[in-house]
Amino acid sequence: MPERVLVVHRLPKSQMARIGQRFDLIDVAGKKLTEALSPEELGSVRATIAAGGSRFDADMMDLLPKLGAIVCYGTGYDGVDLKAAAARNIAVGHSPGANASSVADMALALTLASVRRLLVADGYVRDGSWAARKPAPMMRAPSGMGGRKVGIYGMGEIGRRIAARVAAFESEVGYFSRSRHDVPYRYFESLEALADWCSVLIIAVRSGPETHHVVGADILRRLGEDGHVINIARGSVIDQAALVAALADETIAGAGLDVFAKEPQAPDALTALPNVVLTPHTGGHTLQGHLAMQDCVMANLDAFFAGKPLPYAVRGG
Amino acid sequence: MPERVLVVHRLPKSQMARIGQRFDLIDVAGKKLTEALSPEELGSVRATIAAGGSRFDADMMDLLPKLGAIVCYGTGYDGVDLKAAAARNIAVGHSPGANASSVADMALALTLASVRRLLVADGYVRDGSWAARKPAPMMRAPSGMGGRKVGIYGMGEIGRRIAARVAAFESEVGYFSRSRHDVPYRYFESLEALADWCSVLIIAVRSGPETHHVVGADILRRLGEDGHVINIARGSVIDQAALVAALADETIAGAGLDVFAKEPQAPDALTALPNVVLTPHTGGHTLQGHLAMQDCVMANLDAFFAGKPLPYAVRGG
Repeated sequence: MPERVLVVHRLPKSQMARIGQRFDLIDVAGKKLTEALSPEELGSVRATIAAGGSRFDADMMDLLPKLGAIVCYGTGYDGVDLKAAAARNIAVGHSPGANASSVADMALALTLASVRRLLVADGYVRDGSWAARKPAPMMRAPSGMGGRKVGIYGMGEIGRRIAARVAAFESEVGYFSRSRHDVPYRYFESLEALADWCSVLIIAVRSGPETHHVVGADILRRLGEDGHVINIARGSVIDQAALVAALADETIAGAGLDVFAKEPQAPDALTALPNVVLTPHTGGHTLQGHLAMQDCVMANLDAFFAGKPLPYAVRGG
Repeated sequence: MPERVLVVHRLPKSQMARIGQRFDLIDVAGKKLTEALSPEELGSVRATIAAGGSRFDADMMDLLPKLGAIVCYGTGYDGVDLKAAAARNIAVGHSPGANASSVADMALALTLASVRRLLVADGYVRDGSWAARKPAPMMRAPSGMGGRKVGIYGMGEIGRRIAARVAAFESEVGYFSRSRHDVPYRYFESLEALADWCSVLIIAVRSGPETHHVVGADILRRLGEDGHVINIARGSVIDQAALVAALADETIAGAGLDVFAKEPQAPDALTALPNVVLTPHTGGHTLQGHLAMQDCVMANLDAFFAGKPLPYAVRGG
């Protein structure tokens, strides 16, 4: 008989289909646990699949007294209270690097679209402005990628893949992260120093208290008026109000955002801007990315139910 | 006294400013020569700046009896009747490779935008569909770049730069061109064979009678339903009506087009489609691209007026 696994957050059914062939999934679709399940049902849950960016705190853990594993779908696990999990002997797993290539591709899609004003250009063709040869300030020749200084904040699996792609565009690559890595890119000792040097800043850092709102008015100002900010990590890393202000008054030139302060919402102040490209947290959303994430989820669950350590465990989790 | 140079096609004033500091430009802004200038004025013109994609035929040359040089702004020179120029001893120059990096960047911007459905995603965020969690067939996870087979048609300066960029996305690169080049990518003996193999076809070939409409219904069918066509070369290479049909009935998944059959127009049939990304022939339109093209134009003109061969001459021109 297949083991039962609780799907605790709202995750698309299509993403659970393969996993559902191996496990008996109880999908509460993001509803409150106490409303969705009886105390007996809650008491029988040994393993859960979670969305790493959604909240999974001590109170939720305490509703699931037999819980032994929280397996996040995706790379992130910032919604999980790791200390509370450790205190309860709950293993926490994720999918490190599984969707890194897809996310890195999205980072470049957003970078190129922002630098080359792809949405503005598409609109200029579609609305007939091109045929009418209408003057358009936003269609002025931008500074391209050749010779550009591109800064990457964070040098994990995703950051490395972004760096390799950016380098192919004849751009210079620099980075800042907590520690220097064995990579052929220039290291900066602080985010401020990186922002002074680069004009495109790509955020690929893990979220947490120490990265909360670190990209704010000061960092944005350092990028300059030809500056672009790309975020494929977590919305919390950017002070979103400061970003909106910097885009509106052209302190920087543009932004490409796959993640937002409060998902699934992008505020009107952001969606009204012409100099942003917005995607609905779909960085890892490719067939290959999902298959790889599902493989990690199933490997973690298989190991857990076999009484073994999770192969893709969160360090410290 | 600066030499006089006729600007025979419609080219943005901003692109002529630097050149205008060195030469005395007579800009007829694309008007008919016989209407814009007197026979005496026409008779005194020794050199012209042309848009390579615009028509410059024997009749126009015959209006300019003293013409010795046609200097194209940009890489292309397909609008120039090379035989007619040779018969009249008129040198033809262009800007080979000057904007190759910018054009290659645009090819990747269009490729990533088409494969990852960037415009659809941006619209999904902006119109509130994401916040409302609206189902959207076009937001289904696409096949990404990892492991994709990307075919490049043409392996000149631009094709090579596109190939180097594509390879960084963990994609396989193949190509077809008249002859095999010393490049580390798989060579195909025909466009048909390349299209059978790849699912993304990037057109980077020079236009001319032998490439006219070669990407038509048959080639598109070979790409398959996950297929994408990217064109940063010339609109004439694609049978545009066949492409519209293939996009409308989903014979292929998407297209990214910087060039069109009849510029500056994109037909309604194309602009009405959700699965295309359209840019107004701005592949080389970056500050760096323009500076490099202007350098080539000025070097060609300097040489011509000094009685020397053009440093950036069209072969056979």
